[in-house]
Amino acid sequence: MRAIVIRGPGGPEVLELRDVPAPTPSRGEVRVRVRATAINRADLLQRMGLYPAPPGDPPDIPGLELAGEVDALGGGVQDLAIGDRVFGLVGGGAYAEQVVVHERALARIPHGMGFEQAAAVPEAAVTAYDAMVVQAGLSAGDTLLVHAVGSGVGTMAVQIARAIGATSIGTARSAAKLERARALGLAHGVLPEAGAFADRVLALTAGRGADVILDLVGGSYVAEDARCAAVLGRILVVGLVGGRAANVDLSLVLRRRLRVLGTALRGRPLEEKIAAGQLLARRIAPLLASGAVAPVVDRVLSLDQAALGHEALHAADTFGKIVLVP
Amino acid sequence: MRAIVIRGPGGPEVLELRDVPAPTPSRGEVRVRVRATAINRADLLQRMGLYPAPPGDPPDIPGLELAGEVDALGGGVQDLAIGDRVFGLVGGGAYAEQVVVHERALARIPHGMGFEQAAAVPEAAVTAYDAMVVQAGLSAGDTLLVHAVGSGVGTMAVQIARAIGATSIGTARSAAKLERARALGLAHGVLPEAGAFADRVLALTAGRGADVILDLVGGSYVAEDARCAAVLGRILVVGLVGGRAANVDLSLVLRRRLRVLGTALRGRPLEEKIAAGQLLARRIAPLLASGAVAPVVDRVLSLDQAALGHEALHAADTFGKIVLVP
Repeated sequence: MRAIVIRGPGGPEVLELRDVPAPTPSRGEVRVRVRATAINRADLLQRMGLYPAPPGDPPDIPGLELAGEVDALGGGVQDLAIGDRVFGLVGGGAYAEQVVVHERALARIPHGMGFEQAAAVPEAAVTAYDAMVVQAGLSAGDTLLVHAVGSGVGTMAVQIARAIGATSIGTARSAAKLERARALGLAHGVLPEAGAFADRVLALTAGRGADVILDLVGGSYVAEDARCAAVLGRILVVGLVGGRAANVDLSLVLRRRLRVLGTALRGRPLEEKIAAGQLLARRIAPLLASGAVAPVVDRVLSLDQAALGHEALHAADTFGKIVLVP
Repeated sequence: MRAIVIRGPGGPEVLELRDVPAPTPSRGEVRVRVRATAINRADLLQRMGLYPAPPGDPPDIPGLELAGEVDALGGGVQDLAIGDRVFGLVGGGAYAEQVVVHERALARIPHGMGFEQAAAVPEAAVTAYDAMVVQAGLSAGDTLLVHAVGSGVGTMAVQIARAIGATSIGTARSAAKLERARALGLAHGVLPEAGAFADRVLALTAGRGADVILDLVGGSYVAEDARCAAVLGRILVVGLVGGRAANVDLSLVLRRRLRVLGTALRGRPLEEKIAAGQLLARRIAPLLASGAVAPVVDRVLSLDQAALGHEALHAADTFGKIVLVP
């Protein structure tokens, strides 16, 4: 099969389309003919040698999500059959024509949704839903603050918040992204000035602060998050494009009883990967089927254009996901 | 009644024994004749003007916990009667001969336990149990790391951990405190060197790290906590004697999916104060009654020696609680 292989740590130029052996499904696993995958920031870090693949996943083929058709079954597979249309998360290897996944970690693609749309869903929607709803308990009536609202996760977070009755405030690097996020249900857009946004969020919440903060930026944003979190507010650290050093005022954390939760999907063990697949099937697919949540695709590239996609995501001039089609 | 009043922000000398009007119980409340109270670090901050009393609590009489006898009933009181021996938490006002509390926020003192012992329990045991078990889910088989193991909270944490089947590692400022904590069930004592303890904790856990960290120090300790927390580890920030500025490596927080939780009892609303009282009655009193957990009293002073008690707690040469008797 053809796959994008990381030749060695480096820039987008190290991504190389090669012929590699197709993987074989073991007990409980299926092989999926990948019809579309999508790019994540973790792929860029992996390519640069900064975020090695988890043990047991392909070390040199990136790709954390996929949509496609089941094309081979391992022993003991019960719920899936050849030809089933599925999507889901993997620990790596999805920049390829075929990938092997435990059947219970996959979900069925809703009727009427194409592969390119479906491939834009798993990482963004599961990250947002798992962080905001499962871990932080976001509920109707809550206020959500989302940073990088134009990212894949951000565009999903705004729609999921609207679907469950929460109000969202978002930040982004440009007014244009905030404007596009409004169409997804964003109630208030805030353009940070010199990295500051807490005063604006406090003003928008009558001084109460945000109940849940989905932070895809990290770095100095976390100290600002603590300044504008409500009592018992949950700050979810999902990404670190703004850096890894946080200088937080612990007296705010203590007095407001804040919770700072780090989260990442990629390195989770099998039972949690399966839980993520079930979440995709039972919580997210119904929202897609009803139209309450729709994937946001910035552009579709062919698999051999993966390097171009990495450049675009690095430049952060995207809105939603970059999809790759093998 | 007599009470210790904070004359104005300042050192221990601003604590003054005065005659003040006795409080009157309202609907659902009882008045308790205080037989013993105890000193907390929050009292020292309040005295210095750094931590004003919550709205609705006496602004100038410190004291967050008490043991005594019910001596008057408000309307509608159902579960308590005059003469009942009770202990519990209040938002302030316990450095006094009488205090008014909602009946459901109080618990009965176990048979055979004296008032001085009972007064050493509520803040320390509820803080430790609520943080470690209720919020962080400490369970049998887990490893707990406790800082300031000789503090009131620390001495309770070690005993509660042992009672529920968890293993505890503790830090303290002196080898003598670590040695005394061993008698309470501490498995391993670590004497931090220049504020560093993470490497020792990793060595003691075969590289796995601690599942729950009860941090009464804060400041630079939090960055060390993150270095020696297990995957999905919970770091509970309970005190800030080490300072309020934390410089945490977010990449650890994200990859290990750590949870940093701030907690404080004093400012909680009525329903949570009641929940704390129920926790004292249903979870902690049975451990006291069985002897699995015993209060650790450093010394007993009379109420008019409150200033002396504040000096001793500030100097941190105590092991366990300082109790005051009106």
